[in-house]
Order: sequence, then structure tokens, then C-alpha cells
Amino acid sequence: MNASPTLFNRLALIGVGLIGSSIARAARAQHAARSIVATARSPQTRRRVAELGLADQVVETNAAAVEGADLVIVCVPVGACGEVAREIGPHLAAGAIVSDVGSVKASVVRDMAPHLPPHAHFVPAHPVAGTEYSGPDAGFAELFVNRWCILTPPEGADAGAVDRLAAFWRLLGANVEVMSADHHDMVLAITSHLPHLIAYTIVGTADELQTVTRSEVLKFSAGGFRDFTRIAASDPTMWRDIFLANKDAVLEMLGRFNEDVSVLTKAIRKGDGEALFAHFTRTRAIRKGIVDIGQDSPAPDFGRPHPGLPASPLPKPYAAED
Amino acid sequence: MNASPTLFNRLALIGVGLIGSSIARAARAQHAARSIVATARSPQTRRRVAELGLADQVVETNAAAVEGADLVIVCVPVGACGEVAREIGPHLAAGAIVSDVGSVKASVVRDMAPHLPPHAHFVPAHPVAGTEYSGPDAGFAELFVNRWCILTPPEGADAGAVDRLAAFWRLLGANVEVMSADHHDMVLAITSHLPHLIAYTIVGTADELQTVTRSEVLKFSAGGFRDFTRIAASDPTMWRDIFLANKDAVLEMLGRFNEDVSVLTKAIRKGDGEALFAHFTRTRAIRKGIVDIGQDSPAPDFGRPHPGLPASPLPKPYAAED
Repeated sequence: MNASPTLFNRLALIGVGLIGSSIARAARAQHAARSIVATARSPQTRRRVAELGLADQVVETNAAAVEGADLVIVCVPVGACGEVAREIGPHLAAGAIVSDVGSVKASVVRDMAPHLPPHAHFVPAHPVAGTEYSGPDAGFAELFVNRWCILTPPEGADAGAVDRLAAFWRLLGANVEVMSADHHDMVLAITSHLPHLIAYTIVGTADELQTVTRSEVLKFSAGGFRDFTRIAASDPTMWRDIFLANKDAVLEMLGRFNEDVSVLTKAIRKGDGEALFAHFTRTRAIRKGIVDIGQDSPAPDFGRPHPGLPASPLPKPYAAED
Repeated sequence: MNASPTLFNRLALIGVGLIGSSIARAARAQHAARSIVATARSPQTRRRVAELGLADQVVETNAAAVEGADLVIVCVPVGACGEVAREIGPHLAAGAIVSDVGSVKASVVRDMAPHLPPHAHFVPAHPVAGTEYSGPDAGFAELFVNRWCILTPPEGADAGAVDRLAAFWRLLGANVEVMSADHHDMVLAITSHLPHLIAYTIVGTADELQTVTRSEVLKFSAGGFRDFTRIAASDPTMWRDIFLANKDAVLEMLGRFNEDVSVLTKAIRKGDGEALFAHFTRTRAIRKGIVDIGQDSPAPDFGRPHPGLPASPLPKPYAAED
């Protein structure tokens, strides 16, 4: 049945939001599984998944989804992973690989592992990719291309299972890195969780001002604010769960951030232009590093579209030398 | 000479960075001036402006640039505006409109106004547009299309001059709003200055961690961090000047932001999922408002490009039903 070590017979997706539906589309496009079975908690989502043709089969329960699957990927908010593991544990096939896509790993391991039978291979994963949109309509097959997928196999994990899951993600276009769950949670606290918390905060701050109206905040947002609103439009349930699940690392990073805010605040208050200039020069290099390794576009303004100039009512000036 | 009230005879640009060079390109494309004269402090920039053909004439001094100009736009960092005004004041033609593009307005008025003669019309302006790039090569004619340009004419300003400057900016594709300099500085403190300060801070925080390497920060930046690095790559001189010039409003907004960070920090520490969920739901509406009024693209992820999937080495599975 298994023509290639990276080809799975039956991929079960539990949860079909932005990430789950992108996996379904990419796995289909790359022939990464002979068949795809999907389930979702709400009847509306299941119906939409069927309408979109994202899976070969849409079933009603998590237990039914994993029957006979050799790869199960749990694509639900991290706070719901434990309950899903409890439901699927008794129904997992021998040798099945069980993975997830959560943005926190230590809590997911703690919540899921106890419910999984020894004959299944648990390999937690986190594809570092996404957009501000949610739901089965928001996904697309290219979401993971050139992004990183981090695997955090527990000690003693089956090496063959880790390799097969890594091959699956590479087939979807991702780069794969392996690290411990604890280190993952520290890395993501600074590269993802703190930025989201700060963006959520500042957007809230702007909305509560008395001196500046909401209409003004929206109109003049192109000065920088609008960038933060994209992140602050991310799925509220997903992000609530992330902050609860990665509390310690997030609080640690928040503490360091607050110290640095204090330093820059003091420089502003004292009028210390040299300190500000030195700081602002250093951060420019980080941007260059991200663009250089292909993790963002060098196009100005993220490549945002710029509509053309309006038709000019004025004649070409007779004296112009162009 | 003046075929249309919005057509200027001679536009003088003092400073030809991202904004100055975009004005030059847009004014040329829209026939907004019969001729454009430009100057810049450094010989390299003047040479580059001439090579790019951005102006009809490139001159060495600010005094020479404004001779005979009926519109003078000062496009230098806000900290340098006073000195420029002192240099050009004695050379301004009667009836000339003098404007600027600074992100702070009260300090620019304070620094420039005393040096300008009564026979010139001073109408400060701020086009709320830009990218993370700097210099004469970075500009483009479409930069101001659908963006807002805020005019802050002092009390008693010549209404005809304000109208002509507003018409100039509309010709370049911008919407125009008039408000007081003080109110402008409060609005921009929240929609632009605080976001930049926070972005500069968090990028610095990430770079100083011992537990997470710079290489990891760069690789896994697609989880949110990379968005902040774009803003934190903005011109250091320009931003040093802005924070020094708008100190009070920025410190006021920083104070409110810090209060809100404390509230969310406490919610995380206490595990108050309901408070987090409520906050994250509210901020989503702000994003929608910005997209609805055309101040950002509805495209996922700012419309960032997504490369295609790699070629799959796997055959189409015989059982798939797609």
C-alpha cells in the first residue's frame, strides 16, 4: 500500500480551520495521502468542508475520523487538544502517527500524551505560518511554502515516525526543525506570542482614547498603526488559549519588553537623541536579516498594492523639460 | 502664467528622500508644476536626483532652490526644519506658499514660523504615507494615492494658499483633512509614533535574548514578529527627531499603553480567559473598519506573495477522488 515512505494511506484532520484546511488542500495537491478524512465540531463547518471538497470523507466524530488513519493531525485551539486526545485515544490504529499544529508545545504534550496508547506515535508539530483569517474558506495550499515547521518529539519518540512526519511537511513546502517543547515555547513567546499581545494591546489603547476618535484612528492608520491591526484581527479563541497555555514564557518576555520600553521612554523624556538613534539603527539590521533568509518580502510596505494616480485635469506644462 | 489654480509655476523641493522624491515623481506625472527645482544637503543625493531626472534643476543651496518658487516643500527630518526656514526666509518670493511633510506639526511651526517673512504663506502639511525605505531611489509617484494629507494652517492663514495646497495634494491622489497642529500631534502619537516606538522596542528585546538566538528569531519570525521589523527598519534620523519633537504626546500615549499592558498581563497571570477573549474579539472590529474605508488591503497577510508548492515526487494516489 505504501509506495513511498512519505505517502500516507489515510490522513485524518480533526479541525478544519485556516491551518487544517490548508493542510487538506496542500496534501491533496501534493498527493501526500491516498485519502483524507476530516471532522469538525460544528455541523456548519463540516457542511462547508464537504461543499469545498476539502476531504474525501467528512465524519461527525473525532473517534470515527481516526479509524484506520495512519496520520492524524489535530488542528484545534491548544486548549481543546487534551479533550480531543481523550476521544481519539481508544480508536487509534497501531502505528498511527498523531500530531498537532498548536502554537504552544509543552502544554499540548502534557494534555495529550496521557490519553494516547503506546501503539501510536505522538510527534507534536507547529507550522509557523498563518494569516489573520480563520475557517475552512481561509486556507490555501501554498500557506506552508518556505515557512518553518517545528517538530518537538518527546524523548524516546520513534525515529521513523519523526522522519515520516518531517517528510510530509517538506512535501507541503515547509522547512523542518526539531527542538524540545520547552525551547519551542520560549522561541515562540518572543517571535509570535509577545508580538500578538502587544498588537492586541495597542489596538485596544487606540480605541479607548477620548482625545482621538475611532474615525481618526482608522483614517490615519497608514502611519504604522494599521500593521498592528492585522495581527490583532487573529482568531480570539486560538489566542486566548495560547496565552493561557504559555503563560510563563510570555510573562518572562513581557518583563524584558517592559524593561526595554522603560529605557526608551527615559531616553525620550531626557531628550537623549543619541540613544534613540543608536537603538533605531540596530533594529534595521534585523529586518534585513529576515528578508535575506527569505522569511519576508523585500517589497516596500509588504508589497501592499498601490492604486494608480487619478487622471490629471491639468495640461502638460509647456515649459517642462521631461 | 497660472492656467489653473492648482498649477504651480515653480515647485521647490528641499530634501529628496522617500517623500521628496515621491512628490517630485507625482507632481511631474500630474503636471502639477511647470518646473521642479530640487536640492539636498549631500552632494551624493543631489547627484542621484539629477541622474534619476527627478527635477528640472538641481541646485546646491536651499536659498537658490526657493528663488522664484511659488511652492516650497521642505522634506527633511523635523529636527532640521528650523534651520532650513532660517536659510530660505530671506529668499522667498512674495506670495510663495511654504509647506513641509513632517510627522510632527507643533514643533515644526514653532521652529519655522519665526524665520518666514510675512509676504510668504506658511501652510504646514503631513502626508500620512511612507514605506520602510529611504532616499531618492525609494520614492514612487503612487505613494500618496488614497492616503490622507493633513494640513495644519495656523490661525489667520491665507485661505487661498490653503486651498491651493489642498488642491496640489488632491492632484497627487491624496485625501485632505485640516486640523490644528496640537490635535495632529495627538492623533499621530497614537496612529504612528507609538506603533513605531513599540516596534523598535520589541525588535530590540528579541535581539538581546540569551535563551533564543538571533538566527532563531529570524527563522521563526513569520509567527508575527516580522511585521514589527518592517516598521523598525524605518529611517533612524527621521524617527529620532519625531520622538524628540513630539515628546509630550508620545509619553501620554505610552502611559496609557502601559496601563493596558498591565491589565492584559494580569489577565494572563490569573488565567482569566474570559477577559482575554473579550479583548481579542473587540480589536478584530478595528481591523475591519480600516479595510472597509480603504486604508488597508483585505488580502490575507497584507497580500504578501506566496511561492508555489514544490514539485511533488509522489504519484497521484489511485484512490483519491479529486
